[in-house]
Amino acid sequence: MKAIGVFDSGVGGLTVVREIIRQLPGEDIVYFGDTARVPYGTKSKETVIRFSIEDILFLLKHEVKLICVACNTVSSVALPSVRHHFRVPLVGVITPAVKEAVYATQNKRIGVIGTKATIKSRTYEKEIRQLDAGIKVTACACPLFVPFVEEGWLKGKVVLDVARKYLEPLKKAKADTVILGCTHYPLLKSAFPEVLGSKVKLIDSARQVAIEVKNILDTEGLLNLGRLGRHQFYVSDNPEWFGGLAERFLGEKIKEVKTAK
Amino acid sequence: MKAIGVFDSGVGGLTVVREIIRQLPGEDIVYFGDTARVPYGTKSKETVIRFSIEDILFLLKHEVKLICVACNTVSSVALPSVRHHFRVPLVGVITPAVKEAVYATQNKRIGVIGTKATIKSRTYEKEIRQLDAGIKVTACACPLFVPFVEEGWLKGKVVLDVARKYLEPLKKAKADTVILGCTHYPLLKSAFPEVLGSKVKLIDSARQVAIEVKNILDTEGLLNLGRLGRHQFYVSDNPEWFGGLAERFLGEKIKEVKTAK
Repeated sequence: MKAIGVFDSGVGGLTVVREIIRQLPGEDIVYFGDTARVPYGTKSKETVIRFSIEDILFLLKHEVKLICVACNTVSSVALPSVRHHFRVPLVGVITPAVKEAVYATQNKRIGVIGTKATIKSRTYEKEIRQLDAGIKVTACACPLFVPFVEEGWLKGKVVLDVARKYLEPLKKAKADTVILGCTHYPLLKSAFPEVLGSKVKLIDSARQVAIEVKNILDTEGLLNLGRLGRHQFYVSDNPEWFGGLAERFLGEKIKEVKTAK
Repeated sequence: MKAIGVFDSGVGGLTVVREIIRQLPGEDIVYFGDTARVPYGTKSKETVIRFSIEDILFLLKHEVKLICVACNTVSSVALPSVRHHFRVPLVGVITPAVKEAVYATQNKRIGVIGTKATIKSRTYEKEIRQLDAGIKVTACACPLFVPFVEEGWLKGKVVLDVARKYLEPLKKAKADTVILGCTHYPLLKSAFPEVLGSKVKLIDSARQVAIEVKNILDTEGLLNLGRLGRHQFYVSDNPEWFGGLAERFLGEKIKEVKTAK
C-alpha cells in the first residue's frame, strides 16, 4: 500500500494536499517541506533543480507511488529538466492550471502571477501558447505576496496597496482570467477582486492537480479506496512554525511534524 | 598578507563591508553570502548554527585573519555557541550596537527591531541588561522589512504603513533609542523618523563593528596600511542578483561575484 508523495519549498503545498485529501480520502500521503532552504522562488534555476532532486530522492526513500510537485517554482523551473530522470510519475501544478485557464478565458487574455523564478521561466506562457497561440499572456512577479501570507497578513489596507501595485499590468491588459501561480496566493484571494474587478476569474490549480493525480492512479490501477489514509509530514527545519501555519493552508490541524535532514 | 573574512546570509552584510572599506582601505576582504539558503532570520537556532559553521569553514579555506559576522541573526543566535570552537577572532554585530545604544539613551528605554530569530534569541536584551540592568528594552520582530528592502521598496506609503504597524510598541514604550538589529534596516532609515518621531536615535552597528575590527587587528599587529585592499565576493547562488543589489548596500558596483557551493 504505497503513499502519494508531495513536496514544496515550505508550507504552501498544503493547499494541494488539502484538495488531494478531499478527493482521495483513502490515500496515504507523505509530505516534505524544505523549510531550511525556503523560499525557492528567489533562487536560480540551477539551485532550484538541485534542491528539487534532493526532495524527490527523500520521498523515494518512502517508496511513494507518485510524486506531486506542489510548488509552482519547482514545477515551472525544474520539472521540465528533471522529469525524465525518474520512473515515478511526477505531477506538477502548471499544466492543470493552464488547461483550466485556456478553457475559462472569453477574451483570450490571461494573466499569470507568481514568484520571480516562476515568471522568469516563462513556462506558463509557453504552455498556454501551445494550447492556443492566439492568447495574449501578461505575467507579473509578485515577490512580496509570499512573505505577506507567511506573516498572516491576508487582507486589509497594506495588502490591497501592494496588490494594486503588482496587479496594475493585468488590469491594463484587460485579462479576464488570472492564474494564481503560487500555492500561497489562494490565501490572498479575497484581496484580488477588489483590485481586478469581481468578474475576473481566478484559477487556483489545487483542485485540477488532485483530479490529475486521481486520473493517473486510476489508469495505473493504484487507487486506494474504502479506507482512511494516513498522512505524514516532514520538514527540514522549524516543525513548530510549520505546524502553526499548517492549519491556515490545510484547513485542519496537524498532529505531528517530523524533522528530516 | 591575510584577508578579513565577512559573511552574511545574503546581501545585507555589505553595509558592514562598506564601513570596513571606509575605515580600513588597506585590508583585503573575502565576503561570503549564503544566497542559496537566504534568509536565516526565519529559520531555527539549530539550522542557523549549522549554516554558520559551514560559512565560517568556507572563509577559513581562504586563510582569513579575522571573521566578521555581518548578520544579526547569526550574531545573536549562533555566535554565543560557536565562538569558542574557533581560533580565528569572530566579531559579531550585537555588542558594538548595544554599547552605542546604552551610551546614547537618555530615558533608559531602548527599542530593538530585528528578524524573528534575532528577537526570539533575546540576545540584545541580555547584553543591554548586562551593561545596565535599569534599562527597559522593547523588542519587535519585523519580518517584512527584509523582503521590502530586497524588492527595493525603501520608502512610500506601503512601507510607512508596515512600519507603523511594526513600530507601534516602540512608540508606546517611549524608547528614545532604537537599535536597527538587521543589516537590511539602515536602508529603510528614512521611513522611521516619520513613524517614531525625529528625536529618536537610530543605532546602526556597521560603523562600530568596523571600529572593533580595527581595534582587534591593531592589538594583534595585523593591520594592513599604505596599500589598497583587494575585495572578493562569493555567493552560494544567484551571483547576478547579488551583483545587482550590491550597489544599494555597498554604495559602489562589484566587478565580479563568484559562485561557491
